[in-house]
Amino acid sequence: MTDSALDPQLLRRVIIEAVTPQVDEGRYPARRTAGERVVVEADAFADGHDILAAVVLWRRRGDAAWQETPMTALGNDRWRGSFTCAAFADYEFTVEAWVDRAATWRYGLDKKIAAGQEVTNERAEENRLPADGGRSQGTRFERVLPVRVERERARFGAWYEMFPRSAGADPSRSATFKEAAAMLPYIASLGFDVLYLPPIHPIGRSFRKGRNNSLTPAATDPGSPWAIGADEGGHMAIEPGLGTLDDFAGFVAAAARQKLEVALDIAFQASPDHPYVTEHPSWFRHRPDGTIKYAENPPKKYQDIYPFDFESDDWPALWRELKAVIEFWIARGVTIFRVDNPHTKPFRFWAWALADITAAHPETIFLAEAFTRPKIMRYLAKAGFAQSYSYFTWRNTRRDIEEYFTELTQTEVREYMRPNLFANTPDILHEYLQKGGKPAFHVRLVLAATLGASYGIYSGFELYENVPVSDGSEEYLDSEKYQIRPRDFTVPDSLAETIARINGIRRAHPALQYDHGLAFHDTDNEQLICYTKRAPDGSDPILVVVNLDPRHTQAGHVKLPLFDWTLPLDSSVDVIDLLSGETYSWRGEWNYVRLDPATRVAHIFALRLPSAGHMQSPLTDAL
Amino acid sequence: MTDSALDPQLLRRVIIEAVTPQVDEGRYPARRTAGERVVVEADAFADGHDILAAVVLWRRRGDAAWQETPMTALGNDRWRGSFTCAAFADYEFTVEAWVDRAATWRYGLDKKIAAGQEVTNERAEENRLPADGGRSQGTRFERVLPVRVERERARFGAWYEMFPRSAGADPSRSATFKEAAAMLPYIASLGFDVLYLPPIHPIGRSFRKGRNNSLTPAATDPGSPWAIGADEGGHMAIEPGLGTLDDFAGFVAAAARQKLEVALDIAFQASPDHPYVTEHPSWFRHRPDGTIKYAENPPKKYQDIYPFDFESDDWPALWRELKAVIEFWIARGVTIFRVDNPHTKPFRFWAWALADITAAHPETIFLAEAFTRPKIMRYLAKAGFAQSYSYFTWRNTRRDIEEYFTELTQTEVREYMRPNLFANTPDILHEYLQKGGKPAFHVRLVLAATLGASYGIYSGFELYENVPVSDGSEEYLDSEKYQIRPRDFTVPDSLAETIARINGIRRAHPALQYDHGLAFHDTDNEQLICYTKRAPDGSDPILVVVNLDPRHTQAGHVKLPLFDWTLPLDSSVDVIDLLSGETYSWRGEWNYVRLDPATRVAHIFALRLPSAGHMQSPLTDAL
Repeated sequence: MTDSALDPQLLRRVIIEAVTPQVDEGRYPARRTAGERVVVEADAFADGHDILAAVVLWRRRGDAAWQETPMTALGNDRWRGSFTCAAFADYEFTVEAWVDRAATWRYGLDKKIAAGQEVTNERAEENRLPADGGRSQGTRFERVLPVRVERERARFGAWYEMFPRSAGADPSRSATFKEAAAMLPYIASLGFDVLYLPPIHPIGRSFRKGRNNSLTPAATDPGSPWAIGADEGGHMAIEPGLGTLDDFAGFVAAAARQKLEVALDIAFQASPDHPYVTEHPSWFRHRPDGTIKYAENPPKKYQDIYPFDFESDDWPALWRELKAVIEFWIARGVTIFRVDNPHTKPFRFWAWALADITAAHPETIFLAEAFTRPKIMRYLAKAGFAQSYSYFTWRNTRRDIEEYFTELTQTEVREYMRPNLFANTPDILHEYLQKGGKPAFHVRLVLAATLGASYGIYSGFELYENVPVSDGSEEYLDSEKYQIRPRDFTVPDSLAETIARINGIRRAHPALQYDHGLAFHDTDNEQLICYTKRAPDGSDPILVVVNLDPRHTQAGHVKLPLFDWTLPLDSSVDVIDLLSGETYSWRGEWNYVRLDPATRVAHIFALRLPSAGHMQSPLTDAL
Repeated sequence: MTDSALDPQLLRRVIIEAVTPQVDEGRYPARRTAGERVVVEADAFADGHDILAAVVLWRRRGDAAWQETPMTALGNDRWRGSFTCAAFADYEFTVEAWVDRAATWRYGLDKKIAAGQEVTNERAEENRLPADGGRSQGTRFERVLPVRVERERARFGAWYEMFPRSAGADPSRSATFKEAAAMLPYIASLGFDVLYLPPIHPIGRSFRKGRNNSLTPAATDPGSPWAIGADEGGHMAIEPGLGTLDDFAGFVAAAARQKLEVALDIAFQASPDHPYVTEHPSWFRHRPDGTIKYAENPPKKYQDIYPFDFESDDWPALWRELKAVIEFWIARGVTIFRVDNPHTKPFRFWAWALADITAAHPETIFLAEAFTRPKIMRYLAKAGFAQSYSYFTWRNTRRDIEEYFTELTQTEVREYMRPNLFANTPDILHEYLQKGGKPAFHVRLVLAATLGASYGIYSGFELYENVPVSDGSEEYLDSEKYQIRPRDFTVPDSLAETIARINGIRRAHPALQYDHGLAFHDTDNEQLICYTKRAPDGSDPILVVVNLDPRHTQAGHVKLPLFDWTLPLDSSVDVIDLLSGETYSWRGEWNYVRLDPATRVAHIFALRLPSAGHMQSPLTDAL
């Protein structure tokens, strides 16, 4: 310090602001997967007219040395640079910018020369330029920002949900894991990556629900898998009807041979018969009369479910036990967990548990099943969930789809929240599927699989199951939640072949393996939705057109954004339908499409753009 | 701590995010003036379905105790509350929210009663409710956010700019401050609040500019006041032609008697004759041949101006001296400063100097004259400038005006940057004024005075001076920057009377004294712009309609936003033209307006709304 009141830091002339990606001032990490690029932007400016230079500083967390990448000026004092998270490890970055003395000198000199002025002095000034170009008086952004790097499956995967107990042929008894293993080749042949199982633990008997959620079950009714815990054990046990822990291990191994990862359901609640109820009564809420509080939403009562009391005096023991449940299954080879209703448990529980677990087991992926208010869904993503269920199921019109997926993929939400698009679930049979016939299933499949890098279906979707328990309900009739439902997947009238083809297209095309590269395009028919996706480097353009009307043929024009792609407006573009193999030659911006749901609900086109053009992309610009 | 790894803080279930107003995470204060309200919003949510309570905690900075105001839920997990900065003192605030155990209990009880259920247990639970309602496990937002409270003039005032040397009758010599004082009653009679003077210091002789910026001045040419410094002194001296420091003090006192505050120009640069040049050569940049660098922008040379070198080895002495210049004039009664080109001096210089000065002299107001890129203008506001020149002069179409003022008054920029709308300056005679005739001056006056709580004109505007130095230039012919220009303000053809009337309307109507209450409304003629302003409490609705075409009569319909005002769409609204005194009775949303620029360019209406209706406002909602 040359002076007590005038800190030499005051000489740092550059101001750096608005660095992105930045989630809540860096309290939470941006999410990427190994091999992905992080495009960093920042406002950087100084007084006067001097020329600046800026770099992204980045490193694997724990490394001592920074790597650096130059940033380029975008105009309006915005800068951009990027780096690649090559390793499966957490990264961090910041930005540094400074007055580039040499460039400023050169610019001034050139300007004088151009004006025909005398430049003897200016040339002589070159020798006075600081050796570091001015960097020692540069400004470094005040925060180091974190990037969590996960494995590819956190970003890209096709999920299949099934109840293993239904995998047999007998509706009166649970199929075993050994029997369910017979379904694995079928599921693998459809091209799925993740096989998600509802809870596999012993099911309570007290207040067990019967078929169609009846309060008067038959003696043989198997009960809901979410009513966890019985004499045979709780969250670390296997429902005897399914087999043993060894049987489960065998199932996981068999799935792995089919390149299927098994995802388990984490539902933190107990049936009245759960061993915790007697062993740890303090983990539940008690009413003044001494009984334990069951779940309820008056007038509804869920007497088969006891919520945990996360705030009891004994909370540290409960929290540790629940974390141990997850660790128990990780020790048995499970690394993907679908968490049931995480938003009804304290957010700080998840932040604490998931931070600990993913630090020890970075390969672990948590999917939040929180169908709740937007800020809560976002917060769970910040708190540690790698994926989130989405509102996709209820977005069925062009406008709704465009608005929702623009928000998810083109705003800062995309930095930390990854949607997983389920076309149906055991709880959600949307009216669109109930009433739209088979084409409705085709439509929703194409949308889910191409709008979302992660998507899923629940077993029976491929068989067009569409009967609700009652008019206006989204629950299935004879819901598998309460009964065993063997299915014949060999029937000829199945979506299986289309699913296999689409999952194959997804695997072949990087554009469909990322969410960020989505852009919607204009059409002159509200029933036709049109969008492109592209790989992060701008390559592999895929154009999807879907007829959202499952009942009628819809025709119209869709607009290729040739201007945005820096192509002449009369360009010819070959489009190859990846579903049918047909090739069309399109010309100019507006091209005609006709989709008859009886034969075809959608095109998934690979585009062959003229070589002069390229897909403009904020990502490619940074390269 | 009950447990080493499980901090009891984890039991704080509420998450608080996105608190506003918040400027760069609280690094910079939101700005208010004494008596203004601060409307605070926050996202606050918890897991599950419990009912929350939230408060704004606020206090004068330095007070030990927090005051608190309840917040109300707006839906979508957003909360709002407010407090008033009653005193002329800095404030600070934060937000606290918690699970309201009593309200949650009551809600559950009522629901069960409504469902006809038995509630003995629930009633008994009342006795178990925590005495504090759950607040002790509440969450307090992690930051305390600052609010800088300034005096009213920082927010509201009409400025008049004049060169005192032109206040006499003789164009061949400078008028003195004593002579210039004779103009004060005239300026006061126009209703201005601030009288802004370009630099009043001795003017250099070396490379002095002649009339119309000539490089070959006549011996009698007075030079540009911005070429500061001569044998007679520098930034702390008075140009001898104007008089002495005592004369200046007399002028300031005379202005004060007319309720005019004198604002001085701070231009931190030196003529080659400035005493600093010989006394502190190290404060300037030197070329290899030993000469001092003058300002230049090749091919242009400004040899009459030496910029300071804010980065020289002797920078602490320079920085202190420049701060002392401002303090020198504060000691002589000046508390408003218009700073010339602050963006060509280091931002951290301003942050340092203005923080020190406003801490010691909180009544001081700094206006940044930075016509530069948007992020830099914003940064100067963050760094300490209470007001900022704006792009108003170049916003002349309906669309441009609506976009720009929506950005300034309806986005977060408004929390820290206050525009001052000059209709002209000695440097800016816009083509609209050059070519639009007298109606153009009326139009720009009405727009400036009603769009901006702070606005100004430069002397001669009221006389319709409109001749540029050359075609395509925004410089005045015979610019007062380079010569003395006596004016006859007594001519009958003057805008003076209209200015006086409009400034009187501004003083009578709180709606025009604040920027935030601006809303634009639809019209069916692009040449007609229509907007309302209202006071922070939603009262005093003023509706302005301006014909932006200074040459032709324009007629059309303007839309009253009756729906937004929660009024029936067939409501009658009396509108009283504050300029003409006429009253019209309007009915329904769309009403006809006709403005002939020859006789009237604008209406400034006071609205008499039916008592059932009110002006909806985010501000009033918070009361």
